[in-house]
Amino acid sequence: MTSVMQRSDAADRALRARAASVIPNGMYGHQSARMLPPEFPQFMVRGEGGRVWDADGNEYVDFMCSYGPIVLGHHHPKVDAAAAAQDQLGDCQNGPSPVMVELSELFVDTVGHADWTMMAKNGTDATTMCVTIARAATGKRKVLVARGAYHGAAPWCTPVKTGVTAEDRAHLVYFEWNDTESVRAAVEEHADDLAAIVVSPFKHDARVDQEMVDPVWARYLRQVCDDTGAARVLDDVRAGFRMAFGCSWDTIGVQPDLSAWGKAIANGHALGAVLGNDKFRDGASQVYVTGSFWFAAVPMAAAIATIHALRDEDALAAMERAGQRLRDGLAAQAASYGIGLRQTGPVTMPMVLFDDDPMFERANLWSGQAALRGAFLHPWHNWFTCAAHSDDDVDAALRATDGAFALVRARFGAD
Amino acid sequence: MTSVMQRSDAADRALRARAASVIPNGMYGHQSARMLPPEFPQFMVRGEGGRVWDADGNEYVDFMCSYGPIVLGHHHPKVDAAAAAQDQLGDCQNGPSPVMVELSELFVDTVGHADWTMMAKNGTDATTMCVTIARAATGKRKVLVARGAYHGAAPWCTPVKTGVTAEDRAHLVYFEWNDTESVRAAVEEHADDLAAIVVSPFKHDARVDQEMVDPVWARYLRQVCDDTGAARVLDDVRAGFRMAFGCSWDTIGVQPDLSAWGKAIANGHALGAVLGNDKFRDGASQVYVTGSFWFAAVPMAAAIATIHALRDEDALAAMERAGQRLRDGLAAQAASYGIGLRQTGPVTMPMVLFDDDPMFERANLWSGQAALRGAFLHPWHNWFTCAAHSDDDVDAALRATDGAFALVRARFGAD
Repeated sequence: MTSVMQRSDAADRALRARAASVIPNGMYGHQSARMLPPEFPQFMVRGEGGRVWDADGNEYVDFMCSYGPIVLGHHHPKVDAAAAAQDQLGDCQNGPSPVMVELSELFVDTVGHADWTMMAKNGTDATTMCVTIARAATGKRKVLVARGAYHGAAPWCTPVKTGVTAEDRAHLVYFEWNDTESVRAAVEEHADDLAAIVVSPFKHDARVDQEMVDPVWARYLRQVCDDTGAARVLDDVRAGFRMAFGCSWDTIGVQPDLSAWGKAIANGHALGAVLGNDKFRDGASQVYVTGSFWFAAVPMAAAIATIHALRDEDALAAMERAGQRLRDGLAAQAASYGIGLRQTGPVTMPMVLFDDDPMFERANLWSGQAALRGAFLHPWHNWFTCAAHSDDDVDAALRATDGAFALVRARFGAD
Repeated sequence: MTSVMQRSDAADRALRARAASVIPNGMYGHQSARMLPPEFPQFMVRGEGGRVWDADGNEYVDFMCSYGPIVLGHHHPKVDAAAAAQDQLGDCQNGPSPVMVELSELFVDTVGHADWTMMAKNGTDATTMCVTIARAATGKRKVLVARGAYHGAAPWCTPVKTGVTAEDRAHLVYFEWNDTESVRAAVEEHADDLAAIVVSPFKHDARVDQEMVDPVWARYLRQVCDDTGAARVLDDVRAGFRMAFGCSWDTIGVQPDLSAWGKAIANGHALGAVLGNDKFRDGASQVYVTGSFWFAAVPMAAAIATIHALRDEDALAAMERAGQRLRDGLAAQAASYGIGLRQTGPVTMPMVLFDDDPMFERANLWSGQAALRGAFLHPWHNWFTCAAHSDDDVDAALRATDGAFALVRARFGAD
């Protein structure tokens, strides 16, 4: 078993104490460490390639990649250089920079279904814009979504309904993932008022096994939208550029009308985007959406450099290689300890869950102990690989998980 | 009359032609040049202090300041240095950086009503969070807003209703600015279901004269909220730090429960914020709001440097001095040409409108001609001054407006 190095958490604890008085709960949202085992740090200081450091100087192999945005690795030199060069000129100005046109053209060239783009900041901006554009284009209201899917944190979609009114979700209709009959029932019930069907490229809900899309079902969704005029919306915010160099359903040859992007498109710079086809251009032309920082040039220059690097450096293959090495290593370790482990979803976005672990006690022990040993691995949210993950990074993470598996075995026994 | 220098718009026109094919309408949102006279550029390349340059290299004195975010001037050295230093470490990470705690403490120290803060990206994020927190804290639904006020561009508040459902606004109730009776009627009608009253610090709606708040009315709103438990929400996104070093109603001694911030707080870096008092801390603790880039460290480091510079460099006084010099100069020019001009609102956020100009024909001619002469002045949206505006900047803008006034006089005559 790997020994746990001498690690301090004094700086993190001091920061948490200060934060408790000036931030509700000390922190909020998806990066709140209250949702993680106590061994995880709350505050992070820096990153480099596939590694990150917390406020106490502890180093981690980073398989969360900032919950997705870091796709090429922290401080990718070409992205950093492009961002710095643009920043010397201007960022947030009285109008967009020429780089907005360049990026839009690059998106349209890169993503098969895209004839046009609109930029924003949050992934939630992008999914909300897709819904608004679909309603504008169709004149209809109902939006079909998979039950339990995450499409952002605005009142219409946030997973916690506190502070949200019933009317915020009045026109949402739920179906079950990969289930044709539940879609058919929803479509039939709302045939006269169908604006959009919104799905992620695969089922990547928190706390449950991930599930790839059934291509037959995906084609059925496409057909329903062709028949009814509703918008096929692909929420590619989380998966975008980690399944294909293009939109994620290029892998199965099914094109959406609108796609929502965010996270990885600028390697950590704040940028969301909606891509659409000509059928929905008029709808997109009619809505009013904007934001103080939406047209800032630095994230767009970073996105151009990111997309070029994704292509030129065969980044997806690098992410897949790292993910496969990690998956193989974890499977071998789990087997050697006699522990039942389920690894689901694309290897670039793995969900790793323990058998017989409804309260995540195994996952919490294991991920906390892995963190103490220098691997940042979430207990119930999918992970992310990046193109900077080397064999050494994967192997270092596996040394950490080996020690963690041993403790799970000691506490819970073999399955 | 100032002569119009030889100016080209060839690069801008070429960019617009390219944009027309890859962006709906060629551009969207508040920075779309379609809403401006044809003399305005769509694309901007760089800024420095109080000046900006378009894609053709044309220089402008910048009195839009990126529609608000630039409060210290473009490329303020201390803000740039703080952002660059943080960027060397990390920006978007697996958790917030320690700078989030530092910035939260600084906000709480700086803004009187604030006991806690939550960061976001868009101003719309901040106003939406205020509404959600108010509903969570009160268990009520109705939100009172001034008719015609702009509080963002999400479905519940965007000024254009295309693609928006009636349910998105089901619980909005409207009153008239500075009108006690209309508030009283709204409160009485919804007394059992009152979550929040949302107002801007002054009336800064587009296309109409601005109107300062009547302190008696402001105190009435405060009293209503004290009596009913509803949240007094101040939407300080646009005005924040341009009326006070603190929240904008410090000027009249009326404190909100929640305030929404954005635009100027990080001198152009993408950051929104909600500030709240302890009465609403529990409500804030219960909602789920988040975003992929909300906890990025660079904008927070920039915000810390911005707030320090606002204080240390007496930035508000500099903005007021520039704004007063501009207002005095414009008033003298209008009088000398016999043209009726109304200048309303704080001098740091002036609205300048022509008498007898319901279709903005005078304003469009005037602002377009001012743009040709090197001053970026919006025909129907409030302007913004920044601390970098020198006397030379103001005087250069006034030389541009003098030529523009002469053409208005020639076309429309004296009033």
